[in-house]
Amino acid sequence: MNKTSLILLLTAFCLTCFGMNEETRDSVQSRRELVQAESEFAANYARAPRFKALFHYYPHAEEAHVQFDKQAIDFFHKLTYGEGWLMDVTASLADYPYEKLKEYSIVVSLNAAPADSAQRVAFEQYMESGGGWMGFHASAYNDRNTGWPWLNKFLGCGLFYCNNWPPQPALVECETGEHPVTRTLPHTFVAPASEFYQWQPSPRMNSDVEILLSISPKMYPFGLKDVVKFGDFPIVWTNRKYRMVYLNMGHGDEGFIDATQNLLFVNAFRWVVSRDQEGDPFMK
Amino acid sequence: MNKTSLILLLTAFCLTCFGMNEETRDSVQSRRELVQAESEFAANYARAPRFKALFHYYPHAEEAHVQFDKQAIDFFHKLTYGEGWLMDVTASLADYPYEKLKEYSIVVSLNAAPADSAQRVAFEQYMESGGGWMGFHASAYNDRNTGWPWLNKFLGCGLFYCNNWPPQPALVECETGEHPVTRTLPHTFVAPASEFYQWQPSPRMNSDVEILLSISPKMYPFGLKDVVKFGDFPIVWTNRKYRMVYLNMGHGDEGFIDATQNLLFVNAFRWVVSRDQEGDPFMK
Amino acid sequence: MNKTSLILLLTAFCLTCFGMNEETRDSVQSRRELVQAESEFAANYARAPRFKALFHYYPHAEEAHVQFDKQAIDFFHKLTYGEGWLMDVTASLADYPYEKLKEYSIVVSLNAAPADSAQRVAFEQYMESGGGWMGFHASAYNDRNTGWPWLNKFLGCGLFYCNNWPPQPALVECETGEHPVTRTLPHTFVAPASEFYQWQPSPRMNSDVEILLSISPKMYPFGLKDVVKFGDFPIVWTNRKYRMVYLNMGHGDEGFIDATQNLLFVNAFRWVVSRDQEGDPFMK
Repeated sequence: MNKTSLILLLTAFCLTCFGMNEETRDSVQSRRELVQAESEFAANYARAPRFKALFHYYPHAEEAHVQFDKQAIDFFHKLTYGEGWLMDVTASLADYPYEKLKEYSIVVSLNAAPADSAQRVAFEQYMESGGGWMGFHASAYNDRNTGWPWLNKFLGCGLFYCNNWPPQPALVECETGEHPVTRTLPHTFVAPASEFYQWQPSPRMNSDVEILLSISPKMYPFGLKDVVKFGDFPIVWTNRKYRMVYLNMGHGDEGFIDATQNLLFVNAFRWVVSRDQEGDPFMK
Repeated sequence: MNKTSLILLLTAFCLTCFGMNEETRDSVQSRRELVQAESEFAANYARAPRFKALFHYYPHAEEAHVQFDKQAIDFFHKLTYGEGWLMDVTASLADYPYEKLKEYSIVVSLNAAPADSAQRVAFEQYMESGGGWMGFHASAYNDRNTGWPWLNKFLGCGLFYCNNWPPQPALVECETGEHPVTRTLPHTFVAPASEFYQWQPSPRMNSDVEILLSISPKMYPFGLKDVVKFGDFPIVWTNRKYRMVYLNMGHGDEGFIDATQNLLFVNAFRWVVSRDQEGDPFMK
Repeated sequence: MNKTSLILLLTAFCLTCFGMNEETRDSVQSRRELVQAESEFAANYARAPRFKALFHYYPHAEEAHVQFDKQAIDFFHKLTYGEGWLMDVTASLADYPYEKLKEYSIVVSLNAAPADSAQRVAFEQYMESGGGWMGFHASAYNDRNTGWPWLNKFLGCGLFYCNNWPPQPALVECETGEHPVTRTLPHTFVAPASEFYQWQPSPRMNSDVEILLSISPKMYPFGLKDVVKFGDFPIVWTNRKYRMVYLNMGHGDEGFIDATQNLLFVNAFRWVVSRDQEGDPFMK
């Protein structure tokens, strides 16, 4: 290694070490170029609703779940302003056989799962046929009495294992900055108060699963009543075999107080819809 | 390059790479020194209101604008507690000819612009004579029908070009950590839900403009109904020819849920006022 | 230095420079191992309330203090759901002689201090005997007229010195990432609006004190009415001679809008309780 190559190597290190500053300078430069270079109109304005979404929750469920669900409906309803997309809300999937479900680009399960075997079959068919899903918190809850093995295949994890209690804020880690759901989030942030679940086996053991966010191990011991002491703790993930994202948040009335978490929710919703098998609705 | 100079170089790298920790240790040290060295009283308590500010909004405008405006008035009203400064709020600039405007250290335009040519003339005279201004969101909106070229000279940018829709949170980047408006903000943060505007030409093309914050390019494609695909996206800036800051936030009811954005608003307000041509009111 | 050792050295630098990514990869790896290795149940579920806490506030105090206090009571009350611990709230310590105080693992003072010498004596005996304390804002206020030297010995600082006004958000710095109270917090964050106090002498001058959080010097000049110009500005600390944490936040109605600050509050509460001299209640 001669002097010149050493200097080149060290320069490369410099650029790497100062990555953030360089990136800033680069992005300023590239923004300036963008201004000068582009001629196409920068925005794609919807001429009609781009897609339909079905929101499902149980109005008479556990109070803290209903608190989250109602706030979630308000949150997503605000995203429909101007009719960029259409939102249906139901308290029961009984009226949604596969033929109706398939009209929706995404089903959003707010602490809710199909209530009987007919609803399960319709939902399975919907997902196996390329349907989209975003589920919060108890929508994925299942134990030995659930008797729905497909749910675990779909989620890519085992049964509910344990939880912190009471709901409280938690430091969370984005495990990748490359994914559309987490690309605009900081590497770590504090998620507002919720109850969080562990699973056994963890979805991390499933090679089809990509973990997006997990509770930081720095939170251990985690809880005041029910104290989680250790263990892998993924809270947002996707099973690549399906068009889905699961988010474990969803307990209590603080789910929408934080702009960063709110962006996570918009990102996840948008990403599932964008992969609609009839083409990305946002490109129409 | 010999062994000694290599080691020196590598040591320099170490110090650079571990910059944050060094800075922390330094600032603790300097704080300790401050405690021991200072003898002057650390605070400057106001003996009378330091300045007057005029807030302007239209109570019958678009609902989502009025939501923001009313929350802004509450937010700034809380900053008057103890009468450190005086706040006037008006729904019309008709009663504010230049002679009255010039009593104010700052005019804050909440989604509102002068309504006719007399009001425009008074506002122009106020700003050209060293007046202070902080404008939010639609206060800077203008298109081919606006017919007020001075506004573009003042803002330092072209016409409204495009926007994301619906309002949603967005990752924003502070383009400088040196400016009093952004010095206390993180390099990037997620701003709460708003609609954001692009301009053409971008204010970045104006050499008198200093861009303070912009939407991160990581947000592209940005929107669910109206999708912004690319382009320079400054959202907070100052035109150095005037005593002013423009902030593009201001649509909907989530403008004040985030402590970081709240600090940005206080910083911008304080900075404009601090440069009053009769001297910094906070030094009185 | 030969080529091989240079390459080794540079590789070490790489690993250092890319610390964050490495850490992420490592923690993913260690999480995976945790999943495979552990056999013990990961959580410790309470079978009975783990401890008792006494909250103290004055319902007829300054309005902005009562706003914070009532929100604090709601915030901590939500943490009792499921009776993991028992919460008593009182508007007077008159009914709490030492014999009653000692039943509590922690006393939380919300802008409140003992009201007379009998209450002071009981509180002194409680703390000197290993009692736990978490105090907010004005609970630590004292000046030349207070006449309670023990309070300063307990807090580890001098008299109230000066404050910013009005309440506003502030950039704060965690001075250590090793302490259980700050381990899960970012290095810096913006705390929501409050009035903040300086002390003279600063608690930093006391070798028994560990400063956990302070106002960033970047905030200077800090305030619109009462402007703090310089000085050491610790806002959260512990005096190692006692089982206590003091938090200077506590003025106004924005104390609980931020997930990061909420986590700080939970951490501080949990840490004081966890050091109960009869053993860590969370291990029961």
